[in-house]
Amino acid sequence: MILVKNALLPGLKKANVLIEGDKITSIGGASDKSDEVIDADGMLLMPGFFNAHTHVPMSLFRGLADDLPLQEWLEKHIWPAEDKFLDKEFVETATKLSLIEMIKSGTTAFLDMYTFEKNIAEVAEEIRIRAFLAEAILDFDTKDYKAGKGVEYAESLLKNNTELVTFLLGPHAPYTCSKETLEKVKEAAEKQNAFVHMHVAETRKEFEDLKKDKGMTPVEYIDSLGLLNDKMIMAHAVWLSDKDVQLVTEKKSMVAHCPSSNAKLGSGIARVRDLVKARARVSIGTDGCASNNVLDMFKETHLAALMQKAVNTDPTVLPAETVFKSATSAGYEFFGLNNSLEEGSIADVVLIDLKNPHSTPLYDYYSHLAYSAKAGDVDTVIINGRVIMKNHEIITINEEEAIVKANEYKEKIKT
Amino acid sequence: MILVKNALLPGLKKANVLIEGDKITSIGGASDKSDEVIDADGMLLMPGFFNAHTHVPMSLFRGLADDLPLQEWLEKHIWPAEDKFLDKEFVETATKLSLIEMIKSGTTAFLDMYTFEKNIAEVAEEIRIRAFLAEAILDFDTKDYKAGKGVEYAESLLKNNTELVTFLLGPHAPYTCSKETLEKVKEAAEKQNAFVHMHVAETRKEFEDLKKDKGMTPVEYIDSLGLLNDKMIMAHAVWLSDKDVQLVTEKKSMVAHCPSSNAKLGSGIARVRDLVKARARVSIGTDGCASNNVLDMFKETHLAALMQKAVNTDPTVLPAETVFKSATSAGYEFFGLNNSLEEGSIADVVLIDLKNPHSTPLYDYYSHLAYSAKAGDVDTVIINGRVIMKNHEIITINEEEAIVKANEYKEKIKT
Repeated sequence: MILVKNALLPGLKKANVLIEGDKITSIGGASDKSDEVIDADGMLLMPGFFNAHTHVPMSLFRGLADDLPLQEWLEKHIWPAEDKFLDKEFVETATKLSLIEMIKSGTTAFLDMYTFEKNIAEVAEEIRIRAFLAEAILDFDTKDYKAGKGVEYAESLLKNNTELVTFLLGPHAPYTCSKETLEKVKEAAEKQNAFVHMHVAETRKEFEDLKKDKGMTPVEYIDSLGLLNDKMIMAHAVWLSDKDVQLVTEKKSMVAHCPSSNAKLGSGIARVRDLVKARARVSIGTDGCASNNVLDMFKETHLAALMQKAVNTDPTVLPAETVFKSATSAGYEFFGLNNSLEEGSIADVVLIDLKNPHSTPLYDYYSHLAYSAKAGDVDTVIINGRVIMKNHEIITINEEEAIVKANEYKEKIKT
Repeated sequence: MILVKNALLPGLKKANVLIEGDKITSIGGASDKSDEVIDADGMLLMPGFFNAHTHVPMSLFRGLADDLPLQEWLEKHIWPAEDKFLDKEFVETATKLSLIEMIKSGTTAFLDMYTFEKNIAEVAEEIRIRAFLAEAILDFDTKDYKAGKGVEYAESLLKNNTELVTFLLGPHAPYTCSKETLEKVKEAAEKQNAFVHMHVAETRKEFEDLKKDKGMTPVEYIDSLGLLNDKMIMAHAVWLSDKDVQLVTEKKSMVAHCPSSNAKLGSGIARVRDLVKARARVSIGTDGCASNNVLDMFKETHLAALMQKAVNTDPTVLPAETVFKSATSAGYEFFGLNNSLEEGSIADVVLIDLKNPHSTPLYDYYSHLAYSAKAGDVDTVIINGRVIMKNHEIITINEEEAIVKANEYKEKIKT
């Protein structure tokens, strides 16, 4: 039982919040009878961020190569580095680094796509962050499985779900998976009642190539395979036709909008205004560190709001509360979890320090979180009802050791 | 004499940096004979940010009103609040808050436009930050002068320049100053050899109205008045014709690009790619807190780079080094100061802490500063050869007191 005392909630109301098990059980009337009392006076309580698309092992490639055309970046830098260095130890080291960065910036849940997801699950369990893990399904050999065995391998992981870890099927993209592979994914997803995560419509090239090859947009294509449904989370979805916007909405799929990565790689700006207007499900993700270069959901939320206002020349688009909910509760809701700071909602929450110049003055809860708050303001992180970070320090892992270990890799990768 | 020991410089070379008076006098070979030795091991040394457009007294309006159409925001929220609360005490309180926020996020110089610039100068001197202050010239009464007396009043301030403070003339905008006023500004600027700061081409409405009224773009109009020259810093410059891009470049005026504000108010995205391509002078500014909502040049630099890549769907646009120099040395250079970490350059420098997950690993100096570094990483700030902040704490002002004072205003403004 944890009592969070005197925290500021939406509307800037001060209240006591009682956490029992993995849930918030009382807001407002809680007493002092509790195993642990957290004095949150002068702090704001927010639902934790759900980082809806990332590749946590890529943190060791942060800043390795920037400002390059996509193909050059992939072919000359990222793929050779992955080929040379990727193994269990690399993944564990990089994942620890990423999870530390995410927790310290207020993320309580993340959705990953990569190889070695089994190892990522182990690290997530150790650090006790909520993880949604999609083993990348590709048509060629990976370090986890032989060519042609991707669906079987990813399917075999689904039985390892725990309270904190949920495995998904992760067909990489329409242009890296054959139609046969995607049909197998569809079959496995249906049989196992599994969620599916996929890169869809990231670049103009992908959009135009598919139109030429199949006469369909990427969204139409995955719909034609029966994959566009309420179990599908599409990363990026930058290049959508009007009909695609409608399809995504009707089929209740979720878009994981990654504004930094789409910008940095020059992919473009997703049609988030139109998606939100249509009432589609929109969540927000950082993508991997190789294309961002940080896993900071405050930065990502801020960027999402500003980009949409700028490109639509309309300040009313994606207001603070809307964008903040996209970055937090939307991802939870998609997976059937309520994280909206109510009695009965999941205890994945974050305390934000306000004793600093950029939090002064404080007129509005959502404005502060969307436009002013910074990663460094995160004081306390509670995930699944357990305190994971307190006074800016993570309890479940030795941060310094993890950083030293990551730096050892740097020396190898750089040369 | 200050010795900064073992700092990482561009190229990630480790070196000792010796500061004597207001200059860096030696890089590399410095000895230990110094009044003050700063151990910068594990830290990165960068030239301080030059925030090229802001309104520091507006920090007390941070988050007061967001996500609103420009006119509604101004007329229903900002102007009434200014009318009601603006006085010397308000300006001093808000300026202290803003300067603390700026210094803590690595800004060593700023260019302000507002009323009460005389009082802002006093606070800048007290806190010892480099300030470029443009008294706003408007055609109506302000709290500093009567209608018609703006140019005279602003001109009278020019004689108060000090080592740290430079006054400028600040005609507010083409649509708020009459042609006669702008002609008087031109005359005064020439006579006094003064710099001029002006909002130019911020919105499509301004651009189209001027085209209709005068048959000229905003840039052509200020050029026709003789104001477009190497003493002119134009804030925003979002709406430029191809000819305007060329004019700004040829006349050596500087653009103060404000991507957050332009985005948040829905003004649009400036043609920074084209300006940089043409070799125009481009600096970066946060604008005021009412439209940003922070004074964080790390965020602003990051946003500038990402927006240009996104809107041009080209990852090679505005690479890390280019955008970082726009945010730092470009502003200094415009005012005749060299701040480029060389022997002989001005000692306005910042030490960046690297012992955190988002700085790990570190492959590239400029990539780190443009894409990964955060305000909270600023450990030490030196301005004009004096240590202003050390171990994350500002020496020249009591931060806590200033924040308490700012919060007292909040209660009044909110109700």
